[in-house]
Amino acid sequence: MKKTTLADIAKAVNVSKTTVSMVINNKDINTSKETREKILKTAKELNYVPNFLAKSLSSKKTFTIGVIVPDIQNPFFSKMAKGIEKVAEENGYSIILCNTLNNKKRELNHIRLLMSKSVDGVIIIPIGNECEGLNLLETQGIPFVIVDRIIDDFENLNCVFCDSEKGIEEGIDYLYSKGKRNIAFVSGKLLDKVSIIRHKAYINKARELGIYNENLNVQEEITLEGGFIGTKKLIEKEEKIDSIFYSSDVLAIGGMKYLIRKGFKIPEDISILGFDNIDICEFIEPELSTVAQPIYHIGKEAIRLLLKLINKETVLENIVKLEPYLIERWTVK
Amino acid sequence: MKKTTLADIAKAVNVSKTTVSMVINNKDINTSKETREKILKTAKELNYVPNFLAKSLSSKKTFTIGVIVPDIQNPFFSKMAKGIEKVAEENGYSIILCNTLNNKKRELNHIRLLMSKSVDGVIIIPIGNECEGLNLLETQGIPFVIVDRIIDDFENLNCVFCDSEKGIEEGIDYLYSKGKRNIAFVSGKLLDKVSIIRHKAYINKARELGIYNENLNVQEEITLEGGFIGTKKLIEKEEKIDSIFYSSDVLAIGGMKYLIRKGFKIPEDISILGFDNIDICEFIEPELSTVAQPIYHIGKEAIRLLLKLINKETVLENIVKLEPYLIERWTVK
Repeated sequence: MKKTTLADIAKAVNVSKTTVSMVINNKDINTSKETREKILKTAKELNYVPNFLAKSLSSKKTFTIGVIVPDIQNPFFSKMAKGIEKVAEENGYSIILCNTLNNKKRELNHIRLLMSKSVDGVIIIPIGNECEGLNLLETQGIPFVIVDRIIDDFENLNCVFCDSEKGIEEGIDYLYSKGKRNIAFVSGKLLDKVSIIRHKAYINKARELGIYNENLNVQEEITLEGGFIGTKKLIEKEEKIDSIFYSSDVLAIGGMKYLIRKGFKIPEDISILGFDNIDICEFIEPELSTVAQPIYHIGKEAIRLLLKLINKETVLENIVKLEPYLIERWTVK
Repeated sequence: MKKTTLADIAKAVNVSKTTVSMVINNKDINTSKETREKILKTAKELNYVPNFLAKSLSSKKTFTIGVIVPDIQNPFFSKMAKGIEKVAEENGYSIILCNTLNNKKRELNHIRLLMSKSVDGVIIIPIGNECEGLNLLETQGIPFVIVDRIIDDFENLNCVFCDSEKGIEEGIDYLYSKGKRNIAFVSGKLLDKVSIIRHKAYINKARELGIYNENLNVQEEITLEGGFIGTKKLIEKEEKIDSIFYSSDVLAIGGMKYLIRKGFKIPEDISILGFDNIDICEFIEPELSTVAQPIYHIGKEAIRLLLKLINKETVLENIVKLEPYLIERWTVK
């Protein structure tokens, strides 16, 4: 069977197509209440669904938003996407999902594709510090919000992210309050702004507390493997270490693997603190204490900001910094 | 700045809008090579992106597919969505992502919304055994593919799923080959078809091998908590158990938590086998041996089948059953 059209309804009710269109779009004045009810009842019986494309052409809006993430399989981004979709749905918007898989060419292609589909706006986690696609969106007047990344040289940028510096400070304060004085720090390689900020915040805070030891920080790729290798390097230095703070949960979980295999007891022998609060923190044993980014909330704030931009409402803050918070589980003693 | 239109290009090149449209849409015959090149160059300089909506209205296609999953935050579905998006992108399609959060009303609303956006087809993991929305799609002639679920009473249904029965048999064969004779089985509650099939396959296979013990199977909600509680119940029965086979990894990971906390050594004291092969299997320690569903591949097959339906190509198999396979890690000895 084919899609029900206005003509099908018109035929069934024996009125003109124009009358049906007027009633369905709430534009009629002269149609009798009886006919109107008959039309609406028939539309329902025939499972009529209004054609959005035609509507979009007249309203110039598609009620569709592009969401560009590095990899939806990464639990951080799938949780964020869920927050975005929640608010989008509440406001009658749908989201088109795109994965860049950290490939700049795919990123640009996705932006072009989203533009060709006339999305009303875009939420993007850009791959690098600069992004040709963002210029394209800017030039074409399509509103966009950057999430979780900090980009250089973009005036009047709209972005939502978590206050990394504060999170690192809070994490070190917490470990310090637990009596830790030999706090190692494993972070991502100092290639992206967020890694640089977290690394710097660790050094500053450790210095401030008078416990900084330059031998106790290593940088690795933000993967399980990276956490494993970084921790191995730390332990093989044979320095005194009572705790390890990882700049992301994935690194921490990789590190715990190394320690458990080497017979370390967590947290008895060594305390572990992560950053992000991905869902996997609760799957591993012992469950990971971490500095939580409000990931779901970041997604929701991003779409709220984007909807304001789309609807040309006043935006008081074009940069939304959300506060991280500590979650105590079982890896810090 | 506003979006570049055909009129902008026409003005810049000093030709008519019709000429620009003909050239851009590859329809012109009489335009000189010089003018044509000038138009294309200007279109590029002005960052012109063709309007997809107008194109869609004439081609009757939107090159957009709806993907309805219970929860994108669930690692099983995010991996599947990634597979779907990969093939969609290769074929010039975009995906609109919807979460039902296991709510039937949301499911129906999403289907209506996708229809109003004139998606070319839908991939859906339905919540229950029956789904009003599927009837709606059927009636309106919109192709759809069901993934990971088995639905009653649907003739000529198109679906892609993993052969659960075979997976359970393979898992028990594997444990048996490792000398296990007291194999417990923890599955989801017997409310959905997949759980019923897996449960039945366990009983049949264990009976066939002459090792069935009715005290060794429990059913719980498919969550970490469910796995934890189910395992507690099993252990408290004080029956002899040398291995536990869980009908999903999430259950297995919850079960391992209970066992580790109670001081059991895995796999020395008890072997553990999961089902699904979600990414988290490699995050936990020891890493989980499991019967893998080809999750990413299931997503890819689903979209391939859907594209065939959309393009009205011959479909030889409207039911695609993919084979599970064993992944040996560290929880079975």
